[in-house]
Amino acid sequence: MNWQPSRQGEITLQQQIETWITEHIERGDWVAGTKLPTQRQLAMQLGVNRSTVQQALEELKAAGILEAKVGSGIYVAHNSWHSLIKQTQPNWQTYIDTSLHKPNYHTIQLINEYEQRDDVIRLGTGELAPSLLPTTEIEASLKELSLEPKALGYSSPQGSNQLREAICEYVKKRGIHANPQNICIVSGALQALQLIAVGLLEQGSIVFQEQTSYLNSVHPFQSVGMQMMPINRDEQLAQTLVQKKRNRQAVFYAVPTLNNPTGGVWKELEKNQLYEACKQSRIPIIEDDVYHELLFEAATSPIKSMDDSGQVLYIGSVSKTLSPGLRIGWLIGPTTVIERLADIKMQTDYGSSAVSQEIVLHWLQTGKYEKHIKSLRKELLRRANFVEGILQESFTEIASWSPSKGGFYIWLKFDEPIVDKELFTKLLQRQILINPGYIYDPQDTQHIRLSYAYATDEELKIGLQIVHECVVEAIVKRHKE
Amino acid sequence: MNWQPSRQGEITLQQQIETWITEHIERGDWVAGTKLPTQRQLAMQLGVNRSTVQQALEELKAAGILEAKVGSGIYVAHNSWHSLIKQTQPNWQTYIDTSLHKPNYHTIQLINEYEQRDDVIRLGTGELAPSLLPTTEIEASLKELSLEPKALGYSSPQGSNQLREAICEYVKKRGIHANPQNICIVSGALQALQLIAVGLLEQGSIVFQEQTSYLNSVHPFQSVGMQMMPINRDEQLAQTLVQKKRNRQAVFYAVPTLNNPTGGVWKELEKNQLYEACKQSRIPIIEDDVYHELLFEAATSPIKSMDDSGQVLYIGSVSKTLSPGLRIGWLIGPTTVIERLADIKMQTDYGSSAVSQEIVLHWLQTGKYEKHIKSLRKELLRRANFVEGILQESFTEIASWSPSKGGFYIWLKFDEPIVDKELFTKLLQRQILINPGYIYDPQDTQHIRLSYAYATDEELKIGLQIVHECVVEAIVKRHKE
Repeated sequence: MNWQPSRQGEITLQQQIETWITEHIERGDWVAGTKLPTQRQLAMQLGVNRSTVQQALEELKAAGILEAKVGSGIYVAHNSWHSLIKQTQPNWQTYIDTSLHKPNYHTIQLINEYEQRDDVIRLGTGELAPSLLPTTEIEASLKELSLEPKALGYSSPQGSNQLREAICEYVKKRGIHANPQNICIVSGALQALQLIAVGLLEQGSIVFQEQTSYLNSVHPFQSVGMQMMPINRDEQLAQTLVQKKRNRQAVFYAVPTLNNPTGGVWKELEKNQLYEACKQSRIPIIEDDVYHELLFEAATSPIKSMDDSGQVLYIGSVSKTLSPGLRIGWLIGPTTVIERLADIKMQTDYGSSAVSQEIVLHWLQTGKYEKHIKSLRKELLRRANFVEGILQESFTEIASWSPSKGGFYIWLKFDEPIVDKELFTKLLQRQILINPGYIYDPQDTQHIRLSYAYATDEELKIGLQIVHECVVEAIVKRHKE
Repeated sequence: MNWQPSRQGEITLQQQIETWITEHIERGDWVAGTKLPTQRQLAMQLGVNRSTVQQALEELKAAGILEAKVGSGIYVAHNSWHSLIKQTQPNWQTYIDTSLHKPNYHTIQLINEYEQRDDVIRLGTGELAPSLLPTTEIEASLKELSLEPKALGYSSPQGSNQLREAICEYVKKRGIHANPQNICIVSGALQALQLIAVGLLEQGSIVFQEQTSYLNSVHPFQSVGMQMMPINRDEQLAQTLVQKKRNRQAVFYAVPTLNNPTGGVWKELEKNQLYEACKQSRIPIIEDDVYHELLFEAATSPIKSMDDSGQVLYIGSVSKTLSPGLRIGWLIGPTTVIERLADIKMQTDYGSSAVSQEIVLHWLQTGKYEKHIKSLRKELLRRANFVEGILQESFTEIASWSPSKGGFYIWLKFDEPIVDKELFTKLLQRQILINPGYIYDPQDTQHIRLSYAYATDEELKIGLQIVHECVVEAIVKRHKE
C-alpha cells in the first residue's frame, strides 16, 4: 500500500481516494467484510489530512460501499444489492479469521510496515543500517563466485555440504565440536525456531524463557499451541523446572550472549548453572547465539561448548553481521534431531537459497567474514558511545540504562510507566518508530529497545530529542491525572 | 550420512562400522531409542555386504549398546548401566515422535536421500538436469548485478517491490492483471501452499484435489490437520462440492497446465467449468501454474485470467525453469489475502533471499528468462521424443502412456499392478531411483512418474532397461503366485 494521491492535476485528493478504495473493492481485492485501516492510519499512509480521509469515507458509506460498525471501525459492506461487491466471492475474511496461525501483534505489523518507509526515523530496528552492510564487498564477491551446476538444483535436506563443513570450522573457535551431519542450514534463526516448534514439541509443550524475551515479539511456538513460561534462574532452577513442567514436554530458550532486547550477557557460571539444571531435569536447551560476534569484549564460550550429551540445540546466523537479506542461519544438534528437522524443512520450503549459501561459504572460507565483523564491531562501539553520550546529556532525569556490551541495543528504562501504545502511536505520528518494551514483555511499561545500529547520527539525535519531548509530555499528563 | 568404511589400512570393515556406530552414540548423536536403518539400508549406504553389517550389529548388541525388538528392528539401547549411553539426555526420540509435523513418507525420505548420491540414476526426479540449468549465464549475471544496500536488509513483508512489478508485467502476458500489492514473493511454490494452509484455513478444512495429486507426496495441508478429498470434475461439480464440504471451509487445489505427475493439460472449457463451479459454491481455487512455461505448444490462459472476483490464488515459480536453488516463487491474490499471508511469512522466515530476488528480477527485466525458456523447451522436447522412442521400442507390451505435452514427465502406466515398495527397493538396489505412483495416489499400483528432464540419454537408456527387467521379473513372479 504505497500509493499516495497526486497533488497535481484536477482531481481532488478526496476523489482520488474514493476511486482508489472503489477500485480495490471492484477488483475483489478488498473483500466484503474487510476492515479498513483507521482514519488516522489512512491519513498517515496517504499523506493527507484526516478530514480528507473522513470525507472520502463518508461518501462511500453513503453509496453503500462501506459500512461503519459502532465502536469497531469501517468495513467493506456486505451489501447484496451493490453491483461493486461480489457476492460470489469466497468469504476471505472468515477464512483469515478462523485459520490456524496467529497474526502478528498490531504494533509489530505497524513496525514491519513503517520500516519500509524512508521518511521515518527507526530507533528500535533490529537490523544493521544499510551503510553498515558490506554491500560493495558482497557485490564484488558475487563476481568471484563460481557456481557448480549441481548447487543450483534442489538442495540436500540439511543444506550445502561445503557450507556445513565451513561452519564446523567456524564454530570450532567457539569451542563447539560438530560434524556436517550435526548441522542444518536454515533461512535465518526464526526458521530454526519454527522447525523446532513443529518438529520436536507436542501441543501444549512448555517453552521456558526469561521474563523479557524476543520470543514474545514473534510467534513460532505460540502459533502452534505451545505455552510460554517466564522463569527466574535462581539456585532452585532444576527443581522449579521439574515442578512447572509437570508431565509435559519442555524446552528452555536462552540468549546468553547479548540478549535481545535487554543486551544482557551471562557469566560462565550462569551458563553452567542453566546447563546443569536442564541436564538434571532432562530439558533440552535452545541456545540462540546470533549476536555473539558483536560483543565488544572477547566472548566467553557458549553453552553448546559444555554440551557432552547432545542436550543443546545451537542457533547461529549471518543476519545480524553480514546481511539479513541473505536469509542464512544454522542449527547445530544431535544427528537424530537434525535429520528430523531437515526432513521438515524439505516439506516446508525445499531448502534455503543456493546462491545465498554460496555467498556465506565464500565469506567464511576467505576470512572476509571475520575481517568484516572486526570493523563492524568498531563502528557499533562508536555508535553505542555516541548514543550513550546523548542519553547522558538529556535523559538522566527521566531514564536509566546500562552501557551496551555489544550488539545493537540499549535497553532504556524510563523512571515512570509511560511506554504504551499511545506513546508508540504519538511517536509514529512524528515519524519516529520505536520498539516498545511491551512487545517483549506484555507487562512492561517502562522500557524501549533503543537501537544504535540503524539510524544515522543525525537521526539518532533528532529522534531521541523527539522521544524526550513525548516522554516528558506523557509524564506531565500522567501526573495531572 | 555419507561415510563409508575404507578398504585400505588394517582395520576391518566390520570394526570400522562398529566404531562409526559407537561414536554416533557416544557423541549423543544417536540417542537412546533411536531406530537404526535396516541391515539392507545400512549395507547399501555403507557400500558393504549385508553380512558385514549384520556381524557389526551383533557385536554391539552383545555389548549392550544396541538392542533388537522383535519384528521392529534394531535400536540404540535404553541401558542404564552402559557408560556410553547418556542417561541425562533429553528423550529426543519421544520429542520427535509426539511432535506436530508429520515426517515425510519413507519412500520420499529415501528419494530425498538418494537424490544426493552420484552413483544413482534418477528416473523420476522433478528437477532439471544440472546441464539444463543456465549455470554459466547465472554466474555471468551475478557480475552484472548491482546491489542496493537496502536490498540486503530485511525484506518488506511481500518481498522486493521491483520484483513484484516485474512479475506483474510477466503475468500480464498470461492474461493476469495484478498490482504489486496483489503479490507475495515466496521461497518456492511449496511455501505458498504452506502459508495458505496455516493462514487461510481452519483445522478440519477440506482440500479438494484430483485423485492423483502432487499434494499427496508433500504435507503442507495434512500436517496442520486439513482433510484431502479427491474429486471428479464432472457436470455435477458445483453440487458435489457443496455436498462434500458440508459446513466446513474448503479450497480447490488445481494444476490445470502440465499436471504433476500425470502431465495432463486442461482444455479452456474445463478451466471455465471449475471456475464457475467454485464461484457458485464460493470455494477458493489454488491454481498451481509452475510448469506452464514448459508446454511444448502455446499455453492457453490460466484460470486466474478468468477471475473477476478475487477467487483464485495463483502460484508461479522459477524452480522448474531457471533454478530450484534460487527458491523464488510468487503468490497472486486479493490484497486482503496477500497481506495476511505476507504477515505470516514474516513470522516464518522474515522473507526470501534478497540476492535470489535480485537475480530473478534481472532475468525477467533483461528478457534472459524468456529466451532461456525457449531453448529449454526445445531440449525438453528432444528428450521427451528420445524417451518415447525407447518406450516404443521396448515397453509397448507391458505398459502404455500418452505422449508428453511438455514439462518433465511421462505418466507411465504398466498393464499389471506391480508398482509397489518392493519394486522401488529392488530398483534402488540396482541404483535406479524411481518416483512410484503410490506417492501421488496411495491406491495406485500401476504408474511411475518417468522424468526425462534429469538423467542423461545414456542413463535413461540403461535405467529404462533395468526398469524393464525388474518389471518383467515382478510380472512373472506375480503370475506364479
